[in-house]
Amino acid sequence: MNARPLLAALAALVFSCSSAAEDGYDLWLRAAAIKGARADEVRSHISEVVLPEGGSEVLRCAGEEFRRGALRALTQDVPVEKAPAREGSVVLGTPASSPVVAGLALPLQSLGDEGYLIRSQIVGGKRAIVIAANSDVGVLYGVFQFFRLVQSGQPLGALDVSSRPSTKIRLLNHWDNLDQHVERGYAGQSIWNWHKLPGWVDPRYTDYARANASIGINGTVLTNVNANATSLAPAYIEKAKALSGALRPYGIRIYLTARFSAPIELGGLKTADPLDPGVRAWWKAKADEIYAAIPDFGGFLVKANSEGQPGPQDYKRTHADGANMLAEAVAPHGGVVMWRAFVYSNETPTDRAKQAFDEFVPLDGRFNENVLVQVKNGAIDFQPREPFHPLFGAMPKTPLMMEFQITKEYLGFSTHLAYLGPLFEEALDADTRVKGGKKGVRPTVAKVVDGELHGYKYTGMAGVANIGSDRSWSGSIFDQANWYVYGRLAWDPELSARDIAEEWVRQTFTNDPAFVKPVVEMMMGSREAVVDYMTPLGLAHLMGTGHHYGPAPWVNDLGRADWNPTYYHRADANGIGFDRGPAKDGKGGSDAISQYAPEVARQFGDVKKTPEQFLLWFHHLPWSHRVSSGRSLWDELVVRYTRGVESVAKMQATWEGMKPFVDEERFKQVGDYLAIQHEEAQWWRDACIAYFQSINKLPLPDGYAPPKHPLEYYKSLRFPYAPGRT
Amino acid sequence: MNARPLLAALAALVFSCSSAAEDGYDLWLRAAAIKGARADEVRSHISEVVLPEGGSEVLRCAGEEFRRGALRALTQDVPVEKAPAREGSVVLGTPASSPVVAGLALPLQSLGDEGYLIRSQIVGGKRAIVIAANSDVGVLYGVFQFFRLVQSGQPLGALDVSSRPSTKIRLLNHWDNLDQHVERGYAGQSIWNWHKLPGWVDPRYTDYARANASIGINGTVLTNVNANATSLAPAYIEKAKALSGALRPYGIRIYLTARFSAPIELGGLKTADPLDPGVRAWWKAKADEIYAAIPDFGGFLVKANSEGQPGPQDYKRTHADGANMLAEAVAPHGGVVMWRAFVYSNETPTDRAKQAFDEFVPLDGRFNENVLVQVKNGAIDFQPREPFHPLFGAMPKTPLMMEFQITKEYLGFSTHLAYLGPLFEEALDADTRVKGGKKGVRPTVAKVVDGELHGYKYTGMAGVANIGSDRSWSGSIFDQANWYVYGRLAWDPELSARDIAEEWVRQTFTNDPAFVKPVVEMMMGSREAVVDYMTPLGLAHLMGTGHHYGPAPWVNDLGRADWNPTYYHRADANGIGFDRGPAKDGKGGSDAISQYAPEVARQFGDVKKTPEQFLLWFHHLPWSHRVSSGRSLWDELVVRYTRGVESVAKMQATWEGMKPFVDEERFKQVGDYLAIQHEEAQWWRDACIAYFQSINKLPLPDGYAPPKHPLEYYKSLRFPYAPGRT
Repeated sequence: MNARPLLAALAALVFSCSSAAEDGYDLWLRAAAIKGARADEVRSHISEVVLPEGGSEVLRCAGEEFRRGALRALTQDVPVEKAPAREGSVVLGTPASSPVVAGLALPLQSLGDEGYLIRSQIVGGKRAIVIAANSDVGVLYGVFQFFRLVQSGQPLGALDVSSRPSTKIRLLNHWDNLDQHVERGYAGQSIWNWHKLPGWVDPRYTDYARANASIGINGTVLTNVNANATSLAPAYIEKAKALSGALRPYGIRIYLTARFSAPIELGGLKTADPLDPGVRAWWKAKADEIYAAIPDFGGFLVKANSEGQPGPQDYKRTHADGANMLAEAVAPHGGVVMWRAFVYSNETPTDRAKQAFDEFVPLDGRFNENVLVQVKNGAIDFQPREPFHPLFGAMPKTPLMMEFQITKEYLGFSTHLAYLGPLFEEALDADTRVKGGKKGVRPTVAKVVDGELHGYKYTGMAGVANIGSDRSWSGSIFDQANWYVYGRLAWDPELSARDIAEEWVRQTFTNDPAFVKPVVEMMMGSREAVVDYMTPLGLAHLMGTGHHYGPAPWVNDLGRADWNPTYYHRADANGIGFDRGPAKDGKGGSDAISQYAPEVARQFGDVKKTPEQFLLWFHHLPWSHRVSSGRSLWDELVVRYTRGVESVAKMQATWEGMKPFVDEERFKQVGDYLAIQHEEAQWWRDACIAYFQSINKLPLPDGYAPPKHPLEYYKSLRFPYAPGRT
Repeated sequence: MNARPLLAALAALVFSCSSAAEDGYDLWLRAAAIKGARADEVRSHISEVVLPEGGSEVLRCAGEEFRRGALRALTQDVPVEKAPAREGSVVLGTPASSPVVAGLALPLQSLGDEGYLIRSQIVGGKRAIVIAANSDVGVLYGVFQFFRLVQSGQPLGALDVSSRPSTKIRLLNHWDNLDQHVERGYAGQSIWNWHKLPGWVDPRYTDYARANASIGINGTVLTNVNANATSLAPAYIEKAKALSGALRPYGIRIYLTARFSAPIELGGLKTADPLDPGVRAWWKAKADEIYAAIPDFGGFLVKANSEGQPGPQDYKRTHADGANMLAEAVAPHGGVVMWRAFVYSNETPTDRAKQAFDEFVPLDGRFNENVLVQVKNGAIDFQPREPFHPLFGAMPKTPLMMEFQITKEYLGFSTHLAYLGPLFEEALDADTRVKGGKKGVRPTVAKVVDGELHGYKYTGMAGVANIGSDRSWSGSIFDQANWYVYGRLAWDPELSARDIAEEWVRQTFTNDPAFVKPVVEMMMGSREAVVDYMTPLGLAHLMGTGHHYGPAPWVNDLGRADWNPTYYHRADANGIGFDRGPAKDGKGGSDAISQYAPEVARQFGDVKKTPEQFLLWFHHLPWSHRVSSGRSLWDELVVRYTRGVESVAKMQATWEGMKPFVDEERFKQVGDYLAIQHEEAQWWRDACIAYFQSINKLPLPDGYAPPKHPLEYYKSLRFPYAPGRT
């Protein structure tokens, strides 16, 4: 009996009484076996792989990834040769590692340290495909790109592909605690089993590294930004060292978060003042200790003076003082410091959206060369939609890293299908309109982040990981797409979210256009659906207290004003929205718009010119205000909330039609999650409408159903065990 | 390409750069394909499966398990028929469900509700194997037993096997919290994803049910004995209902823990007094509500007035008052109440080992018929070794359930290889020597628990689960054997731990005797190794505070005396051990021995007759006391601590020799864990010797190495993130 009938027979048993195999573990590297004429075509191009002997660990992994990819695609191993011996050879290597590649005089100069070239050409008299780079990790990236082409059904006969990453540091940020709890994690526990490290190195770490390398991610911050000094203790450095050994073969460097008060907590010092010589010496020694164990350690990520975390301001020093102290400690080893701009202070009475800008812009030029300031895409906190952060473009002398949140803290956790590609794309494509950057470069956020606009030496992007111990890694199949699109955009911020969705769908499911087209459509509209049923028209931060699960726009009793949903929506009998325009006569807006470049500020400051999607972000407007549809603001809110729910119903219908193309296990999981999403979208709509109606006392537009329950019902719901707590 | 070369090729890629497939998920149901002549033999006996049409869900699952087992064994599906059509037929069913089985007039009377019969005979003129029972779940158990025979290499030509369980209620107890933390869990999070229930029912629940059914477990307590009233709230009953739907097809009923104060916390009552009519009505209504959702709900497990849990004594009522109130609520629905005897009170100055007996024996005869009292195997708390609990045999009118701990809270978590079969067997085989039971029945603990001695109507066994979200379920491959042996002994307490180990090894790894024999030997010695390096000669409870990770015999400053290791070992300059003999002249022992039957009390009360393994459990002896080896007590302690470490080294050597028989992934994981165990065994030895030596100032025997570090080093170690915290 050959393999396929066996698998088919096993599949037939699935979901009657027994469970199944298509559990999502293989991610987009699933690489279903290719059949028919296409298999013959592929086979004709990958008859063997040519690898130099004695290459580095990374090159060896590139070779094994090639064999694995070939085995999966063709259910057939390919021989490894030192030089082309057959037609249809694939040659891997760098000029330094491979005499064959060196002999080809390839145009590799423009590829930089990590780029690759994939080219069809004759080598040693044989028809071949060359996957070459200036570094072994570039070859590895090329191998993954090659199989992306193979698995997406691309023709392989005349390849001439080259690519290099736009940013140097492409990281995941794990908000993972040492007890394996993941803050804002909806996919189980942390995959880092600190207790069993260093004695046991879970083979899953290797699969983690493979998946990340396949999309160009080259580093990972292992620990939570709400940091724990213990992660820098000697026992934990040993554990991190063991982990780095598993990730290094795939080009993944590790980084740690640094708790600013660690010199006190771990070192027994009396202060953590960044200008104190003892403190500086402690950090220097700590960096030396880490680098002795992990020579390619990437550096530190720091959240300081934000939400209760210690920081330099505790000692009347600036963020630059703090960052530079750490930067000096890691500089001799080639490390960097990533200093988060997400700061907001309890004492500051100003609009929370303004605080990062106010604190950081004056420090531009005062950071050491190896410091990057890490800025969230928007000025509040990873909402379903925010306008771009005004810091982008405003710190020309300081490398600004983008921080996206891949985990869906505010977008329905892991049961709501929300493809974040459009969210990321919207942020990266936003035009800052700042002046003074490089000539001819449109000053988009992407061009700030990739360093082209301001000529940053270091560049980077960070994504808050949605990865956990769940078998599916991300808690759902479609959340894997968010990990994927983040990595692809970190490599090239100008890729299109739609193209990436299609790439992902083809690799994860099938190349059948009857599946690809509707599912990509569904993904592309999914984030807008969430915006509609949670926070339409520029509303924000209406989620349940603490866990952010479900609607709670009525909450107004939290410890600080800017934790309350009422702070954000400011609804009263007359209207709704946050006036961020200029203050007049001591009244009026927070003037946050003035942090943008003048052209942008003018646009956002004018109700008529403000894109409707940001309307209530920037303006407080009467319920009767007419919007572009001709409806009143209140009617439009009801329409959009309702539309969000309807969009999910449409997604359910689309998915129902995909049954012929998907294995039962994934089909059922996605369908079950969509049902949960639909129920929760309805809950969002009904609770928000019930609440806002209790304030404005206005009727619903004709034909729109009232909320299913009275407001008190929604207010009574409690979710003490919602996942992802801080 | 057929299946085997494909799998071989994939395996060849394992552990070079990539990860692997033999991750332990399939447990003992792994069912490797059978090869060669044996495959032909098996094939000749399972040419088809005969199943009645339109059977129950359970019978349908029995049929699918058969097909799955056949498919795995022979990589070949078998046809399903309504009557035997081929030689080598396998006939499944009950007389009620299957006309074919009904026509055979099988001797099924003695099999009870859950037993099965497997017999070779001619059916309808064809050579057949009949797997029959009085109930569909009995057929399911028979199918699993049949494949145990198949996979263990047993001859199938002339089968005549029958079996019925010795206990009625065979449960796992999950100490799982609603936030998915598992108390004393070392295998990841809880597999119950309460947040996603009821909308999403993880297919893993089905595999959980299959695994349990395969060893005869028929119920599971979903929630922690340190209970949370929220688990009885309507939303959580809906979630439990969804879970019960996944488990029911495999004969697994669900149970919940009941927090005694739930009427206050959930019901808003002012009291939880079990004699209060409002409280009684609340529980009755709650039971009715649960049974309306889950008609086969099993009942409640209760931890009351123990370690801070609320209970009837808060209202000056007895445990019987509390249990009977709940028992009345579930009785109309056929449910039971399991009331834990693990009680110890802060105020009681007596030996903690005595308290359960003192509280419960006077209540014998005062519990309702559907109450079982659940008793841990020993009187302290799941130590590496304890003498049997004196309650066994002392409550002839009250069904006593055994509570074993499968999760290794005190035996090295999931990285120490310690097969618990011998521990369970030692407890079950202990002879209570009580009088007055059924004539001709040796009054062992097993005969108390299975009800034969005292004629209990209800009987049961509970195992505290070692199951979590880890891919391997139990955190390690060998910990799966502890789940397995628990289930097999709950079915039949008279099975041998060694035979069960062999069964498990054959199914989990291979039938090759070159593997089976040494690995079974290794398993059988492994628990004794733990006793030696942790708590030799009857010592107990010397583990680290709270988490119980590693040694901490020096701790003497905890909130209550009987949480301190010093309370248990009582070492001073003169000697060591806990005198549990009679008090003389106001001094002397705790008299715990008097709780045993007189013959046993005389044995344990006499230093010379006390088995050496319990020496310091019952006696405080001078360091110079001569033991059977001729050595002083101190020298013997050192020898045993050292021997424990050496035993682990021998296990490492044994395992190293097993490389040819095991896939790389499992070989490496076991080897890595053994290395951790060896390091931690050395730590245990050295820390304990350093500590006791600091007290007795005695030299080590010749040739025994001093501890690697000074005592202060061991005392300085801290493990704030050790897993499994309460």
